[in-house]
Amino acid sequence: MSTINTFASDNISSACPEVMDALAKANEANSPSYGEDPWTKNLATRLEEIFETPVTVFPVTTGTAANALALSTLTPAFGKIFCHELAHINTDECGAPEMFTGGAKLIDMSGANGRITAKALEDVIYGAGNVHHAQPATVSITQACESGTVYSLEEIQAIAAVAHSHGLSMHMDGARFANALVTLDVTPAQMTWQAGIDVLSFGGTKNGCLAAEAVVFFRPELVGDFPFLQKRAGQLLSKSRFISSQFAGYLKDGTWLRNARQANAMAQRLSKGLAALPGIELAYPTQSNEVFVSMPAVLIERLSAQGLSVNDEELDGKAVRFVAAWNTPESQVDDLLKVLADHC
Amino acid sequence: MSTINTFASDNISSACPEVMDALAKANEANSPSYGEDPWTKNLATRLEEIFETPVTVFPVTTGTAANALALSTLTPAFGKIFCHELAHINTDECGAPEMFTGGAKLIDMSGANGRITAKALEDVIYGAGNVHHAQPATVSITQACESGTVYSLEEIQAIAAVAHSHGLSMHMDGARFANALVTLDVTPAQMTWQAGIDVLSFGGTKNGCLAAEAVVFFRPELVGDFPFLQKRAGQLLSKSRFISSQFAGYLKDGTWLRNARQANAMAQRLSKGLAALPGIELAYPTQSNEVFVSMPAVLIERLSAQGLSVNDEELDGKAVRFVAAWNTPESQVDDLLKVLADHC
Amino acid sequence: MSTINTFASDNISSACPEVMDALAKANEANSPSYGEDPWTKNLATRLEEIFETPVTVFPVTTGTAANALALSTLTPAFGKIFCHELAHINTDECGAPEMFTGGAKLIDMSGANGRITAKALEDVIYGAGNVHHAQPATVSITQACESGTVYSLEEIQAIAAVAHSHGLSMHMDGARFANALVTLDVTPAQMTWQAGIDVLSFGGTKNGCLAAEAVVFFRPELVGDFPFLQKRAGQLLSKSRFISSQFAGYLKDGTWLRNARQANAMAQRLSKGLAALPGIELAYPTQSNEVFVSMPAVLIERLSAQGLSVNDEELDGKAVRFVAAWNTPESQVDDLLKVLADHC
Amino acid sequence: MSTINTFASDNISSACPEVMDALAKANEANSPSYGEDPWTKNLATRLEEIFETPVTVFPVTTGTAANALALSTLTPAFGKIFCHELAHINTDECGAPEMFTGGAKLIDMSGANGRITAKALEDVIYGAGNVHHAQPATVSITQACESGTVYSLEEIQAIAAVAHSHGLSMHMDGARFANALVTLDVTPAQMTWQAGIDVLSFGGTKNGCLAAEAVVFFRPELVGDFPFLQKRAGQLLSKSRFISSQFAGYLKDGTWLRNARQANAMAQRLSKGLAALPGIELAYPTQSNEVFVSMPAVLIERLSAQGLSVNDEELDGKAVRFVAAWNTPESQVDDLLKVLADHC
Repeated sequence: MSTINTFASDNISSACPEVMDALAKANEANSPSYGEDPWTKNLATRLEEIFETPVTVFPVTTGTAANALALSTLTPAFGKIFCHELAHINTDECGAPEMFTGGAKLIDMSGANGRITAKALEDVIYGAGNVHHAQPATVSITQACESGTVYSLEEIQAIAAVAHSHGLSMHMDGARFANALVTLDVTPAQMTWQAGIDVLSFGGTKNGCLAAEAVVFFRPELVGDFPFLQKRAGQLLSKSRFISSQFAGYLKDGTWLRNARQANAMAQRLSKGLAALPGIELAYPTQSNEVFVSMPAVLIERLSAQGLSVNDEELDGKAVRFVAAWNTPESQVDDLLKVLADHC
Repeated sequence: MSTINTFASDNISSACPEVMDALAKANEANSPSYGEDPWTKNLATRLEEIFETPVTVFPVTTGTAANALALSTLTPAFGKIFCHELAHINTDECGAPEMFTGGAKLIDMSGANGRITAKALEDVIYGAGNVHHAQPATVSITQACESGTVYSLEEIQAIAAVAHSHGLSMHMDGARFANALVTLDVTPAQMTWQAGIDVLSFGGTKNGCLAAEAVVFFRPELVGDFPFLQKRAGQLLSKSRFISSQFAGYLKDGTWLRNARQANAMAQRLSKGLAALPGIELAYPTQSNEVFVSMPAVLIERLSAQGLSVNDEELDGKAVRFVAAWNTPESQVDDLLKVLADHC
Repeated sequence: MSTINTFASDNISSACPEVMDALAKANEANSPSYGEDPWTKNLATRLEEIFETPVTVFPVTTGTAANALALSTLTPAFGKIFCHELAHINTDECGAPEMFTGGAKLIDMSGANGRITAKALEDVIYGAGNVHHAQPATVSITQACESGTVYSLEEIQAIAAVAHSHGLSMHMDGARFANALVTLDVTPAQMTWQAGIDVLSFGGTKNGCLAAEAVVFFRPELVGDFPFLQKRAGQLLSKSRFISSQFAGYLKDGTWLRNARQANAMAQRLSKGLAALPGIELAYPTQSNEVFVSMPAVLIERLSAQGLSVNDEELDGKAVRFVAAWNTPESQVDDLLKVLADHC
Repeated sequence: MSTINTFASDNISSACPEVMDALAKANEANSPSYGEDPWTKNLATRLEEIFETPVTVFPVTTGTAANALALSTLTPAFGKIFCHELAHINTDECGAPEMFTGGAKLIDMSGANGRITAKALEDVIYGAGNVHHAQPATVSITQACESGTVYSLEEIQAIAAVAHSHGLSMHMDGARFANALVTLDVTPAQMTWQAGIDVLSFGGTKNGCLAAEAVVFFRPELVGDFPFLQKRAGQLLSKSRFISSQFAGYLKDGTWLRNARQANAMAQRLSKGLAALPGIELAYPTQSNEVFVSMPAVLIERLSAQGLSVNDEELDGKAVRFVAAWNTPESQVDDLLKVLADHC
């Protein structure tokens, strides 16, 4: 892959050695199926340590499935889900939340830097109990969000307070949970249930796993029919340990935080370098492992003519995206900056 | 795991070394996401060699997802899917086909040894064009079927002929495709499109993979909106190579056929040993890697008292099931037979 | 219409004068919409008198909608609905229950004379709590049933006892509720909630209304989200009084019972006459307003050659059906018998 | 009803005599069911005269059902429907379009006076063929629209041109079709298929019927599976003539246009009167039978204290709505204006 392509997304990265080792170890002998294996059983225990509270956990294979299943547990078919207009659930899941909920409406909100605000949320919630209107049910925020910025604890708390005051549930899409966590330098508990998050899509795939996501419930009364919904969605793996063991490696000895710190650091390095180039400007503050810039069309064309295509398809084409991953070395960042500098 | 538990299902087995090696190799470097990686691209090529015809292939993570997605492409929301009453899609997928199709009806048919017949199919198809009735759309057979027997080529051809004469599509649930194939000793082409199969759920998980299934279309005009249906079902992995590379190992140098032959041979050994025990009788002919027997209740209780629980939950509790896998050694079969003999 | 066509179904009959009068009266002045009109408000009161218990009522326009909405309130998307294989919900609603429930499975049972039994029900309920299986949720019986026979109170009680012992809800499809009621000569309370029915589809259309059905809940805790489900199904009429006023006329001064008695009496007269004809035999006992007979194919052809087509499409073509309605006069029955006698 | 309540909505109005007469006539004798009656058969003929082109017509009972069924024929489950943010399908159908389509996304657009523009539409269509995005499928406009204004022919043509250039279908929600038609003073053909409309929800209920709506297809290739979708939605009446005969009266001798003219004229009278009152301002131009005004909160409270509640719940509470109907007399308008003047 060319240097530029390497920054197209964090989902092009390989899995980290700790994950591969755990997987190999889980494969050494036969083990019970459908979640009865030790790795799946241990996953809840490990997450309870990390989140410092009892949780109910369901491992699944994709972030789309994690989000759609979580939302389907929280939202009736005639319900409304409030989210940012750039939310992955709104723009990049081909209607998965609608499918899994049986037809819920996503109410998309604008908001600076990819984030909704408590105030804006308060303004769009209406119609509860009125049979003509789809019913307010759930709020979903993405942390780190789709434009690479991060909700502060105060922002999350304020949004959750509005949601809960209306009887709505709070979902967090944590596809890049670790990246946000190390940016805020807070505990997982602080960034989730202590701030009012009820259910979390806890992502591992982008940050060093092969395919490992988990739906984490902080309030047992919300779990509802999840096991049945998961099974009928084809998301209950017979060899569940294949996902759970990835998490075992991912969550052991701080691997996941190390991975996120490296990705974020490389994004910072890249962000500073890009901002210094003529004609390139940051589209959003760089607060996780994603860097969004505006770039002259002529530069994009010049790069393209060299076979170097940049990713300008995210965010409805409003910016060019570069993403660093757990395995991005400094040299690659510097190479990229050099290539861009040569074409500016 | 106890010896008996080891025979509970083939989905407790580890992945075979060839699969693990391919997976490790696919992880050596970054690679494009969402199916643009070389392993996913090569999968179609490899399957075209194996099936001796052009195919369209979509890798997914579970057999339930493969079946439900395949059926949803073939069947409108107001359609009927004809299958055996013991079919996995009917009894063991918690309504996944209904979810993915948006509400299609499974018409379950009885039939000796877990198999439907062309004659019985002809008798239950009615109502096409009549707005009051759900519309006949799809026939699904399982090969090897849920009671461990295998459709002959002639049986498949006859069923497909009835289906096609009514304009219905033919789906094959091949969760144990390899096991059936080596039993019949025919080519993959003969057992599928040459016999009238339109779409195949090609299973790898039970026969040596971690989690690898593929939906294989033999008629391009049936593919329809599959890519969108797959994405919105949360079944498009960002790191697709992690399914595809499993298939690379699985399908290389005959690994998949070797695995199936070993499993079948062990099932035969077990079947003969069980049939020789007093009070135990085969419930179905043993034609793949599953052995179903009827067993005196007192024997089941005696084993249970020793902590040895047999799997009598399959097939609605009509028989006790023992399943051999690719990694079942002769010694384990003999141990099991000894344990049972001791308790008879 | 030819005499024979007049017996094709009770849904070809006009509305009775009492219904038309009530409708005209309800149209005399403007009135609030969406159920806030006096006719809709009075409907619950009137049904509470008739059923001698508090009820929650929702008027809708078709029997299919009444059934599907009722079932969708009782049954999760991954649920099972147990019914007779000839049940209207299973064979004549083009998958409406599946659509409204979001994919529930109808488990069809055989049973003599179109009725299921408590014993058979007990035998098919399994899998509760097991994530692999669609979950037992609801039992639906039709009274009078699709083959024209009637469940006795004891039969209903026994079936409901089995359903409730497993935590399932009891639904009654009462498209021909009045016809069954006058046959049994019991009270509406006895035939419903006192026998264990939880929710009733109360039909008016076939027995003298234009288009008037009502979903009647006997247990308020089951109503759930019905108002929202009704609205999103397009079944909340803005001018609700159009349905409710029909019921006002239908239920006033015993109109509905008079209508049903006339229809049943004419069916009895026809049944006796048919049974006396050579080559014609009753397929089921005549217990409501439907008469099912087996008839020589040659006779059917002979009639057809005269432009007199009989309805042999019901019950999967297993019998020829003649249906009497509230407005069937004796002379029409006698004419029909004469036509048939002439062709025998 | 108080004078003010009489203006709450046009769906509180009675049916007009022509409709009631036709209904009574259709009830004089028995008639075939499920659309085989002469009234239903004649409906297509009559609409073909009116629209001057071949059409395919399906009568249903509610506007919500008409819209949701029409949209479900045009839009896949993973599709997008573009509409104004105030569109009835978006705000007042409790998720019916989402239910009937199996989960399509409504993309709501802003736009002055309740109308979208061709330019704005062009800007929001993206992602066709990209598996990550729900797929652009359908554009729906309301004529007259929810804020009481009317699209000009040129506006419709321009919007349809954009839609069709992207391969999208054009739906018109014509709940107040006649009101818009007489405002524009054009032919039904000009306002629909000649301007690029593919499918129309043709409303009768608000303009003099009891419950009569029709889905009208101008392009036969779009009808698709409509008959099955209608049946499984519980929208195929067994006694279909009771909708169709309403249309017979409604469409005979210009009844529908006379009704609409009266309603519009009364709205104009009211609009002028309101605009002359101190503190009251028109929120939108009055172009059909709805008048929207902004009104001081203190006036609303003063009226409420007198038991005179105004309808301020439409359009998300952005204005107070008064609606005239076919049977609104001048005296009632003048009474209302006097009441308001007294409280200003």
